[in-house]
Amino acid sequence: MAFSPPDFSDPRFSRSPDAKFLPAPADGVLPEGFFSTTNLPTYVRVKGAWRMPREPRMDASLVLAPDGEVWVREMRRVRKGELVAVGFAEDGSEGIFVHGDAFLGDAHEGEFKFMTSEVSREKPIDYAQMARLLVEERARGGYPIWVLGPALVHSRARADMTWFIANGFAGAVLAGNAVGVHDIEASIFATTLGMTSDGAATSGGHGLHMRAINQVRAAGSIENAVAQGIIKDGIMHACVVHHVPYVLCGSIRDDGPLPGVFTEMAEAQDAMRVHAKKATMAILIATALHAIATGNMLPAFVADADGTIRELPTICVDSSEFVVSKLKDRGTHQAFGVVTNAQDFMHILRLYVERELDARGGARK
Amino acid sequence: MAFSPPDFSDPRFSRSPDAKFLPAPADGVLPEGFFSTTNLPTYVRVKGAWRMPREPRMDASLVLAPDGEVWVREMRRVRKGELVAVGFAEDGSEGIFVHGDAFLGDAHEGEFKFMTSEVSREKPIDYAQMARLLVEERARGGYPIWVLGPALVHSRARADMTWFIANGFAGAVLAGNAVGVHDIEASIFATTLGMTSDGAATSGGHGLHMRAINQVRAAGSIENAVAQGIIKDGIMHACVVHHVPYVLCGSIRDDGPLPGVFTEMAEAQDAMRVHAKKATMAILIATALHAIATGNMLPAFVADADGTIRELPTICVDSSEFVVSKLKDRGTHQAFGVVTNAQDFMHILRLYVERELDARGGARK
Amino acid sequence: MAFSPPDFSDPRFSRSPDAKFLPAPADGVLPEGFFSTTNLPTYVRVKGAWRMPREPRMDASLVLAPDGEVWVREMRRVRKGELVAVGFAEDGSEGIFVHGDAFLGDAHEGEFKFMTSEVSREKPIDYAQMARLLVEERARGGYPIWVLGPALVHSRARADMTWFIANGFAGAVLAGNAVGVHDIEASIFATTLGMTSDGAATSGGHGLHMRAINQVRAAGSIENAVAQGIIKDGIMHACVVHHVPYVLCGSIRDDGPLPGVFTEMAEAQDAMRVHAKKATMAILIATALHAIATGNMLPAFVADADGTIRELPTICVDSSEFVVSKLKDRGTHQAFGVVTNAQDFMHILRLYVERELDARGGARK
Amino acid sequence: MAFSPPDFSDPRFSRSPDAKFLPAPADGVLPEGFFSTTNLPTYVRVKGAWRMPREPRMDASLVLAPDGEVWVREMRRVRKGELVAVGFAEDGSEGIFVHGDAFLGDAHEGEFKFMTSEVSREKPIDYAQMARLLVEERARGGYPIWVLGPALVHSRARADMTWFIANGFAGAVLAGNAVGVHDIEASIFATTLGMTSDGAATSGGHGLHMRAINQVRAAGSIENAVAQGIIKDGIMHACVVHHVPYVLCGSIRDDGPLPGVFTEMAEAQDAMRVHAKKATMAILIATALHAIATGNMLPAFVADADGTIRELPTICVDSSEFVVSKLKDRGTHQAFGVVTNAQDFMHILRLYVERELDARGGARK
Repeated sequence: MAFSPPDFSDPRFSRSPDAKFLPAPADGVLPEGFFSTTNLPTYVRVKGAWRMPREPRMDASLVLAPDGEVWVREMRRVRKGELVAVGFAEDGSEGIFVHGDAFLGDAHEGEFKFMTSEVSREKPIDYAQMARLLVEERARGGYPIWVLGPALVHSRARADMTWFIANGFAGAVLAGNAVGVHDIEASIFATTLGMTSDGAATSGGHGLHMRAINQVRAAGSIENAVAQGIIKDGIMHACVVHHVPYVLCGSIRDDGPLPGVFTEMAEAQDAMRVHAKKATMAILIATALHAIATGNMLPAFVADADGTIRELPTICVDSSEFVVSKLKDRGTHQAFGVVTNAQDFMHILRLYVERELDARGGARK
Repeated sequence: MAFSPPDFSDPRFSRSPDAKFLPAPADGVLPEGFFSTTNLPTYVRVKGAWRMPREPRMDASLVLAPDGEVWVREMRRVRKGELVAVGFAEDGSEGIFVHGDAFLGDAHEGEFKFMTSEVSREKPIDYAQMARLLVEERARGGYPIWVLGPALVHSRARADMTWFIANGFAGAVLAGNAVGVHDIEASIFATTLGMTSDGAATSGGHGLHMRAINQVRAAGSIENAVAQGIIKDGIMHACVVHHVPYVLCGSIRDDGPLPGVFTEMAEAQDAMRVHAKKATMAILIATALHAIATGNMLPAFVADADGTIRELPTICVDSSEFVVSKLKDRGTHQAFGVVTNAQDFMHILRLYVERELDARGGARK
Repeated sequence: MAFSPPDFSDPRFSRSPDAKFLPAPADGVLPEGFFSTTNLPTYVRVKGAWRMPREPRMDASLVLAPDGEVWVREMRRVRKGELVAVGFAEDGSEGIFVHGDAFLGDAHEGEFKFMTSEVSREKPIDYAQMARLLVEERARGGYPIWVLGPALVHSRARADMTWFIANGFAGAVLAGNAVGVHDIEASIFATTLGMTSDGAATSGGHGLHMRAINQVRAAGSIENAVAQGIIKDGIMHACVVHHVPYVLCGSIRDDGPLPGVFTEMAEAQDAMRVHAKKATMAILIATALHAIATGNMLPAFVADADGTIRELPTICVDSSEFVVSKLKDRGTHQAFGVVTNAQDFMHILRLYVERELDARGGARK
Repeated sequence: MAFSPPDFSDPRFSRSPDAKFLPAPADGVLPEGFFSTTNLPTYVRVKGAWRMPREPRMDASLVLAPDGEVWVREMRRVRKGELVAVGFAEDGSEGIFVHGDAFLGDAHEGEFKFMTSEVSREKPIDYAQMARLLVEERARGGYPIWVLGPALVHSRARADMTWFIANGFAGAVLAGNAVGVHDIEASIFATTLGMTSDGAATSGGHGLHMRAINQVRAAGSIENAVAQGIIKDGIMHACVVHHVPYVLCGSIRDDGPLPGVFTEMAEAQDAMRVHAKKATMAILIATALHAIATGNMLPAFVADADGTIRELPTICVDSSEFVVSKLKDRGTHQAFGVVTNAQDFMHILRLYVERELDARGGARK
């Protein structure tokens, strides 16, 4: 990459003072306010001349040698009394200039920073804010859509999802056949794909999802299966009982499918879009396929009744940074990524929503 | 892979009955108790002869054609009245034999099952059991060691970790210089590597961890920095105040390091092993390096005072299956993997421990 | 986990000799043939009595103290002349017994081993063997099915995939609408989702896949678009020109779709299964959805014309261990996982196939 | 997020023409040059007035209804003869304005694009360019440093790494004790941690790395072990034989360690920095710890002998996007990420370097 050195005849530089140096108070200890280096080309003004320190690296200090040379040196290697540059400004105004523009694109705003990645498991998750959003959405009659992948059911976050549906936090639930199948298997047999809630594979378990599907097909519909007491609890049960609309979309990996699953993809997309159009918030959990499908048909903004326009809160939860990045790479740039496990996300989010409701002094509805 | 067909002259087969078939009650609906296929070589006894069904696949049914041929057919393609095999046994005792041994290694015990992987984000996490273990360890005077990676601090699980230390759940804390640095930066500047608790990178933030280190080096030790009020809260503060021993090990990526960090690796290992020898439980969170290091020096078992021997509970938490598998691949086979985010793990684990304490009727200590 | 100590009155133990100890030849150096410890309960026969060594850990040695006590000690801590146990047997036959059965399940066959995980980026990939398989399949008129995800196209492995199709290594190609769309966008505009082959996003690029789809829709079919010179190269072009059947399945995230895409899921599954039934080998690359869908309908075995039965070679390539584990967890246990990038996989596989062809002396077709 | 609507009284808007609409040529086919929508607030000028289209989503078209309303509609739903907006400009100059600035940060330069993530397995890898860089570095006497993690050795990329060392492409090799141990175990026993080159765990294999270490400790140094024929091939052998300097740094997870490993971390960092200072290129493969450590001490730029300054080419190879992002989050923003397997990377890179050398007409050294 080409590099244009700074023009030190420019007034902003010619007016700069010399850099200030203070003695290190002890071996391996720097003076308060020391300048902390970056890995970028850096220039230090010493006796009116701008010079590049030797042996550049980040996270180190600038030490002035008796001969006027400036050295980049690790804290632990600085000896008591050595002269160490102080200052925070990197724009030359205190005699030190970090030439960031040349090396850092617009994405970094020309400043050296840590932790600038958009999606990372190392980023704190602000559950309180998400809980506030959800509670406000319910209060104002918003339409949050929940888009769910099968891991949510395998990991036994069913109970928490059911709670959100039962308590009015879901405008609609969008998922695939598998979510319905696992949820119903869990209701009938207490397993998902034959796995118990302890995570153990069971003998003969490989057929249980087929038996669950068959019972619902025999009943004719999920609604009938709920009415007949075949499905007694869980996500699908809650949708039926609480009249929350759901869309189950088919895919080529489906068994069955369950009655009511949209197996024609244009119809499935149209059915999803009915809800995408109304959405005022979107929570996408543990599914690349459905998250990207929803993102494709979701505006990045909400136009409120009074004509104002704001970003559509879009939360994407996955165990891997990749799924969130992929969603953003497909244009859903407004997505906020939460890198965690579906079970844990649901559990904590519910907890915070309950706290938020309590804080609002209220009946939980 | 070589394959030996079953020897149907063997008495276990010659005594088998013919497979039983029942008519499908409706289009796309199978009779109760239908046999659900696997992808393994399968043999069906029809009129005394064992025959392989045509067009094998898993998750389907066995349909008997008028000509005696047996077909593997998806549920949705079965028509009312067609004859469908019923039965659960796969050992031939009901006329259907699945030849699993040939294809499935010992790991599968010769049986076709789903969800047999050892480590997966799709496995439910049993927080109640982990909480019980921790509470019991505390009650019996056990010595749980906590091994921490920096993501725990970045993700702001500091408060929860501090709670565990303050409440007697940590025998010792083992970590690297970075955990100490980020924890102390968070206490002094409310950032980690310049990132706020909202996950935002701050201007000038790249030097804050160096300033935190410098303050502690100036104070002479972490203990002094706590005594002088420089470090006011957090993990290191809790260890000092509650007299919980900690070991901070150095590495080649360290800044500083903090005073008290073991920078000689043989000494660091010896310091860790003091605690590994005493350990009655291990919780390894968000660190491959320290988890594997600890696993290397940890027995897989605990010998209790009365001479009995039991597995040493070893919990390994990471956002990726890979770290847990890698730990197991290095011989720590007893590790139980939890694939999630450090922040969420700590938050929920604390919640369950609090519930467990409440359930035990008690003062939380 | 419960633990039954070994019964040392058993003849296999009572006939054991005492363990043998040799002096360390130098500080920090062990005698040849030293016994290397595991983390499992271990018993050492000293003067006729079985004793457990103190301070157990793996990767260490057993040192006999003058008082008859046996200590587990790291190599670096052993001093010249100290008595170190030698032997390889862990079954007691040389006086050392490792009690593996109690702690290791059947999956480990009761033996402590490293690197036993089934799927890991740390496992070597045997391209030579895969290449041999492919060449043999072609020679014997086999029917390898290739199941492709969009990352293969984004990463510009199109040319290599095209080569495999053109040279007779593909019985059929199964993929989704997106693979067709990206492949055709690459042919017409040299981008995929607007990204150039350098990985750069282009201005105005977000509409290019729609323009590609529109051109094919206007032509009426992919075949027409090839005939009219709209599509000039790539995967779809190769399928059409070389008469290799392909199935493009729809999904809810599709744009367009392209003409010929199966948008009804039962029809799509039926279309896929036509090829799954014929498959003698399966290569699944960079797609969870299509890999699992194919795995669901694929027998784990091939019945050759002469009646012999063998495992169906099933290779699953993904950047993450998770997708391969998920596929296995859905019953496709025979899948062999290759954890790598689609571009690299295709490139090296082709290279090895070319070498194999050259080695066979021959015309490459 | 707050949103300011565009000021349509601004001259740039008042001078805009009405948007142009053309009839769809057939059902589900759009006119050439159609406008492809984004998910951002969009305004269309119809009869002099700017209006927002209804039902916004990305990847769709704008259809003008007879009543003057503009609808966002999927291609497949457009009927022959309906009026569809055409144009590419999103700045209002053709009557369509996409209000990107409000929603997209500087990182996106106000333009809606796909595939903007910095690190992704879906990005093409430009091996030709990397090969050119390496060949040029060698030609000009540069100093490329190679930083290696153990997966490179497990995956059997040893031969390729050895080739690069032997052929003058490595200024220095930086790694940990484990890389040395596995490499030497592979040379002596043909295993790594007891795993064969087929990826199989071997009986008794868990002690082989300890036996390898012990042999080298008995020899006194890696150099001696090479001289005595104990180490016959591989990475360490190549470094010794070709006089390429190497630094093996210790860590708390080390067995042994090998003689010559730096076990004091300040010394280890100083030893690494000797090479970091000279580096003109850095290739970091399959190691988070060593990559970040090296990144910390590496300037982002190279000052060439003639005083010009350019970015220091820094390639980071890992199976996961996370490691590359983490490295960047620690300030090594110049790192270019390659998301793949170490074995494949090394194999292809070598191939391209060989081709580049051949293309330069030449002796390969």
